[in-house]
Amino acid sequence: MKQYREYSREEMERELAELKQSYREYQMRGLNLNMARGKPCAEQLDLSMSMMDVLSSEADLHCDDGTDCRNYGGLMGIEEARALLGAMIEVPPENIIIYGNSSLNVMYDAISRSMTHGVMGSTPWCRLDRVKFLCPVPGYDRHFAITEYFGIEMINVPMNSDGPDMDVVEALVASDSAIKGIWCVPKYSNPTGITYSARTVERFARLKPAAKDFRIYWDNAYSVHHLYQDRQDYLIEILAECKRAGNPDIVYKFTSTSKISFPGSGIAAIAASQNNLEDMRRQLAMQTIGHDKVNQLRHVRFFRDLNGITRHMKKHAEILRPKFEMVENIFDEELGGLGIGSWTRPLGGYFISFDSLPGCAAGIIDQCRKAGVVLTPAGSTYPYHRDPNDSNIRIAPSFPSLRDLEVAARIMALSVKMESLKKLLAG
Amino acid sequence: MKQYREYSREEMERELAELKQSYREYQMRGLNLNMARGKPCAEQLDLSMSMMDVLSSEADLHCDDGTDCRNYGGLMGIEEARALLGAMIEVPPENIIIYGNSSLNVMYDAISRSMTHGVMGSTPWCRLDRVKFLCPVPGYDRHFAITEYFGIEMINVPMNSDGPDMDVVEALVASDSAIKGIWCVPKYSNPTGITYSARTVERFARLKPAAKDFRIYWDNAYSVHHLYQDRQDYLIEILAECKRAGNPDIVYKFTSTSKISFPGSGIAAIAASQNNLEDMRRQLAMQTIGHDKVNQLRHVRFFRDLNGITRHMKKHAEILRPKFEMVENIFDEELGGLGIGSWTRPLGGYFISFDSLPGCAAGIIDQCRKAGVVLTPAGSTYPYHRDPNDSNIRIAPSFPSLRDLEVAARIMALSVKMESLKKLLAG
Repeated sequence: MKQYREYSREEMERELAELKQSYREYQMRGLNLNMARGKPCAEQLDLSMSMMDVLSSEADLHCDDGTDCRNYGGLMGIEEARALLGAMIEVPPENIIIYGNSSLNVMYDAISRSMTHGVMGSTPWCRLDRVKFLCPVPGYDRHFAITEYFGIEMINVPMNSDGPDMDVVEALVASDSAIKGIWCVPKYSNPTGITYSARTVERFARLKPAAKDFRIYWDNAYSVHHLYQDRQDYLIEILAECKRAGNPDIVYKFTSTSKISFPGSGIAAIAASQNNLEDMRRQLAMQTIGHDKVNQLRHVRFFRDLNGITRHMKKHAEILRPKFEMVENIFDEELGGLGIGSWTRPLGGYFISFDSLPGCAAGIIDQCRKAGVVLTPAGSTYPYHRDPNDSNIRIAPSFPSLRDLEVAARIMALSVKMESLKKLLAG
Repeated sequence: MKQYREYSREEMERELAELKQSYREYQMRGLNLNMARGKPCAEQLDLSMSMMDVLSSEADLHCDDGTDCRNYGGLMGIEEARALLGAMIEVPPENIIIYGNSSLNVMYDAISRSMTHGVMGSTPWCRLDRVKFLCPVPGYDRHFAITEYFGIEMINVPMNSDGPDMDVVEALVASDSAIKGIWCVPKYSNPTGITYSARTVERFARLKPAAKDFRIYWDNAYSVHHLYQDRQDYLIEILAECKRAGNPDIVYKFTSTSKISFPGSGIAAIAASQNNLEDMRRQLAMQTIGHDKVNQLRHVRFFRDLNGITRHMKKHAEILRPKFEMVENIFDEELGGLGIGSWTRPLGGYFISFDSLPGCAAGIIDQCRKAGVVLTPAGSTYPYHRDPNDSNIRIAPSFPSLRDLEVAARIMALSVKMESLKKLLAG
């Protein structure tokens, strides 16, 4: 198959004209499709509906230790929930605090607390002239939005297939005490789908930051979100690794059940060293009397244990896998061999990451929009929405139906071809 | 009846010896009673158990506007919940944001946001040399804990029977631009049980603070928490009053269902002007994708409307009223006419406020503790835990059973007598 760049000018123009014709046909269908956000589809949400029945009016809402989940208290979360989420993210229950419904909120609060009160006794960040965060790119837009909101300067770090470029990370954190953190989605990364290698995690655990209050923000959002049963990524557990490396306080690990039970009505958690937890507990005691223990109990009674979660995630995978494969196959079919883009084939998580020819991403997203397909806005996977190559597009295949997804993927492939040809013709 | 201060020294000593004998008998019972926190009792929690059944696995978890409550989104809360809580606190739905499970958390976040980002464009408070809050005293310890945690200087303002001393409030806020807020529990106040008069609310609405970013923190925690059907306090709605006074942005109004449905598993809200809500919305969009909409829907389907809440609160009142009356009657019986203390007879809320002779509160609380009765620690109702008269004790009669409460109230009365006699003998 001939790559587009090998086409003659005439061939390119003829091809573009044909593509425009197909594109106009799609436009006339007045579509309204959305691949912008990592939202579970209704069929996935249905998987958890029986959770609504586990706590009936006849149920005993007491914990094993006698706590009445209906009443005030339980700042750290109920023991059963700490054990359940602990098992899921491979940390002991005593290293976990269960929060409310959103791990994003826990991350926001961690940064906010550091701004006003510092980290384990350090100078509050709001009193410092400059605070910086490292941002492996492409990455998660909501992470970057939090640090931008607090006026924290974001520094791009390249992502490789085994995680962030650790040479860069090690050098930067060792030399600049204004660098207070790094955003990580270490497993089935948002958006590239890669999982940090054992060597990468080991190097994270052994970082020697100039700032004592530097923390790794380890957003373990997709720990059990496999797409396949026979092929799964494996991630080294970082809390244990940090302890082993004599660096126990360097990491905050976040998780939630948002894409396991119900997004927005799940339970979130942080795992960290006892020193870090005590730091958080002091603040938390000012902020609330306790999170929603009834919902914690509901999750415990529904999933029971890690096996329950694993069985449940298999059902999610059965719904999601065909969607990912649909997009990947259409891209293979439509774009394979043309030399105008590359895309990931993740084994888990919620995203396919697409890299176009440099300078084409915004145009592709715009073309898609005009044909009724909404993608995450251009630049979203980079701090300040600035993709230096204008090349990365995050695709979220979970929400649309398979039928809609097929159309959306074809329109996207078409848009990629058109924009690439325009670029080649112009260049 | 003769007051203690009219007793001869000999009479006092004889009385004290007798009281000590009774006290020792209570001590020997090895009691463990708690009147420290405003916690609903199990019987009250049982009132909401059928809430567990309103959303079954067969239920449709969509809102009227088509929102799937199980999925991400809905930053401001579902319309139905905004309408329900709006009706409860007498504001239009469009002036409300529904949050998570805790209004304390909403207040904390409001202060935290003001520290890092200011209020509607003002200088972030963390950049100011001094930030001060007015604290009507006695007041709610968790309010004071938040402002203390953020290093905000707290200034006591006397509480009268119709609300804070507004002469003091008006003079202070007009003269000092470092004063950024005032804590208020305007109805069935914590702990004094009084409700702000119409005149007090009118004066609040017409405050002319030197600081543009001054806000009234109106914690309307007990808006529907009446103890009686025939005698109820009435509070003027402050948002409307502020608007009328040309001062629409001066107030944040907080509420929750914590003492209506389940504490810790209810829903909380803020009501404010559109300008304030927009200020909050910008921050909220960084902090979360949305709060727990399933729980919002659960509350809406359970209560349906304000009438549902009113009927439900009558049931709470039937459980709580005898407890309040039990304590009040025992105090009447044991302490009436002795001139050694005064106590409130609130028409609603969760507390009885007791004022001992100056210098006796810490001793009384300690005596109670040694006989197995836990009260809120001395000074709790004052900023920095400093009650200048060592006189105020907050009593929470809701949690213990009637039988336990009777014993606890008698032990407290006994402790009041003993400490008062010791004081009179010493003084």
